[in-house]
Amino acid sequence: MQSFNPPVRTLMGPGPSDIHPRVLAAMARPTIGHLDPEFIGMMDEIKELLKYAFQTENELTMPVSAPGSAGMETCFVNLVEPGDKVIVGINGVFGMRMKENIERFGGEAIVVADDWGTAVTPAKVEEACKNNPDAKIVAFVHAETSTGARSDAQAICKIAQDNGCLTIVDAVTSLGGIELKVDDWGIDAIYSGTQKCLSCVPGISPISFSEKALDVVRNRKTKVPSWFLDLNLVIGYWGGGAKRAYHHTAPVNALYALHESLVMLKEEGLENTWARHAEMHEMFKAGLQEMGMEFVVPEDQRLPELNSVWIPQGFDDAEIRGKLLSEYNLEIGAGLGDFAGKVWRIGLMGDSARKEKVLFCLAALKAVLNK
Amino acid sequence: MQSFNPPVRTLMGPGPSDIHPRVLAAMARPTIGHLDPEFIGMMDEIKELLKYAFQTENELTMPVSAPGSAGMETCFVNLVEPGDKVIVGINGVFGMRMKENIERFGGEAIVVADDWGTAVTPAKVEEACKNNPDAKIVAFVHAETSTGARSDAQAICKIAQDNGCLTIVDAVTSLGGIELKVDDWGIDAIYSGTQKCLSCVPGISPISFSEKALDVVRNRKTKVPSWFLDLNLVIGYWGGGAKRAYHHTAPVNALYALHESLVMLKEEGLENTWARHAEMHEMFKAGLQEMGMEFVVPEDQRLPELNSVWIPQGFDDAEIRGKLLSEYNLEIGAGLGDFAGKVWRIGLMGDSARKEKVLFCLAALKAVLNK
Repeated sequence: MQSFNPPVRTLMGPGPSDIHPRVLAAMARPTIGHLDPEFIGMMDEIKELLKYAFQTENELTMPVSAPGSAGMETCFVNLVEPGDKVIVGINGVFGMRMKENIERFGGEAIVVADDWGTAVTPAKVEEACKNNPDAKIVAFVHAETSTGARSDAQAICKIAQDNGCLTIVDAVTSLGGIELKVDDWGIDAIYSGTQKCLSCVPGISPISFSEKALDVVRNRKTKVPSWFLDLNLVIGYWGGGAKRAYHHTAPVNALYALHESLVMLKEEGLENTWARHAEMHEMFKAGLQEMGMEFVVPEDQRLPELNSVWIPQGFDDAEIRGKLLSEYNLEIGAGLGDFAGKVWRIGLMGDSARKEKVLFCLAALKAVLNK
Repeated sequence: MQSFNPPVRTLMGPGPSDIHPRVLAAMARPTIGHLDPEFIGMMDEIKELLKYAFQTENELTMPVSAPGSAGMETCFVNLVEPGDKVIVGINGVFGMRMKENIERFGGEAIVVADDWGTAVTPAKVEEACKNNPDAKIVAFVHAETSTGARSDAQAICKIAQDNGCLTIVDAVTSLGGIELKVDDWGIDAIYSGTQKCLSCVPGISPISFSEKALDVVRNRKTKVPSWFLDLNLVIGYWGGGAKRAYHHTAPVNALYALHESLVMLKEEGLENTWARHAEMHEMFKAGLQEMGMEFVVPEDQRLPELNSVWIPQGFDDAEIRGKLLSEYNLEIGAGLGDFAGKVWRIGLMGDSARKEKVLFCLAALKAVLNK
């Protein structure tokens, strides 16, 4: 067997997005120890940069050493105890995954259902809160990666707070792509991924916990049913202070990459990044409309960074995506779950949200669809 | 904030070990999608190469997308159900962590205790099996990273089998460093890490499950209390067959690195790699003895790849390690738990098990200890 030399693709699916050469170069720097003082200094910088990205002062803001699904699990496994009632908005695959999490940790999921391709309806969440005054948590997905719908995180968190609930927010596809303000909006626990709008390699999940959420973790009646994700332990390594206790071996080089992508985010400025994603979406939308293609999500609930479009009649899903990949080295995403075979998901995230890529993607689509 | 440029260290602690430039270069290759056919082809190669490294035909042989601790958790969370009795050998930190895992998943841990710095005693395991005919699993650490002791995995697995127990084996520090034969020894579930004798970047945990173990997972009475690590789901992505279902986003670039390090293992040949680790240990031992330094572990239970030595009288642990790091860019490991402040752990693993590094380490130790 030989070394693997991947083809050079343009990644415009639901993630991973294209990685900037600076981030790839950072990955390849020499590995040092996970307790090396130089490494610990870099960890502190990552925490500061993540606070900026999340717009929070939360002391517990750090990257989980595993992909976004593990970030989700970190939130639920630490905050949900057997018997806890959790109101969960479901409008796509990742809301469903939240429900799986709640139930696996012994919680009771109160489902607030919305159609795929639409946002979570705040009024329905409010009704669920009123009907379940003993609910402990409200959980929902800010940017539903399976559909491209954007929910009003600020409104839903306000409702949760007014009803005495903690909030768990999935920001896997929103962090760095659209406005997100953890402190202003009163989010208690949030997780994201590195391979979407941060344009870093996949495998790491940034999280942030408010003091209130952390108090709940500290005062659990039962032990967290995970050793690897128990924040009471992880804090000993990622928490403040000069003395870091070994918990697990951090993914050193992946964290170099995350550091570099966050430095680049800071250089561009969060508001500029959000504006770039919005601008690229407008450019893409104009091109799609010229081709007569239609969005799945109503305009006012649409994510700029993840565009779900109906597959035009007469075209075969796999065949077209196959052609784009083999003839154009262009990856776009298939539909998930109910949308499989019906929808394409086209991501304009991070370093893929650039004019040259948007225009290329439009041109390639035009060519394979003979538009 | 600026890009992070790590110093170039020689890593001779308990891991991460030095990474070969070929592996670092592989890391930095362009990211492609986790469902790209080219990536899936590489995943299949990784599975084949891991089967070779583990010496197994187990179909479920794959890398977990998180560090070794998550590999440990994958074994326990899938195999232990509430009320299950698990016999666990404890002779250091990682046996203790196994006990934590067992208890967090509702199991009952039957502890077989041995002194730190010695192997797990097979006769004690046998006695525990006889006293607990209803035990379901025997778990132990093959190469105890906290002490440098090597347990007789073959003998212990034989005892477990004779008594109708499944086995869970921690091979984090043994895989690629010493003889390990999953099928011949009848190991049912095993996990390792990438950052030890494979000399790959930290963050991934190779595992292998026998058909018997997998049947137990498939026929659980309760759902696995983890969505991220539930092998019933993970198999849909890593399992055989052309059609892979999305489970989580794989750490694409870290898997490029793992692939490259496994290709290098195959090129050298497993037996040659084991022999190199043994040879480097002999060279290191001779140098240490010349300096009058003493090993913690009796010779017949000693791991070649991880050398625990007593800190010579009159020297301060942190001061000496600090000097080695700042003046020689050399990392050696501190003692863990009971051994903190008393012991140094010096790793000769993977690409750190090379003459040039062994001789340099000896010379640097000699200099800072004025020997």
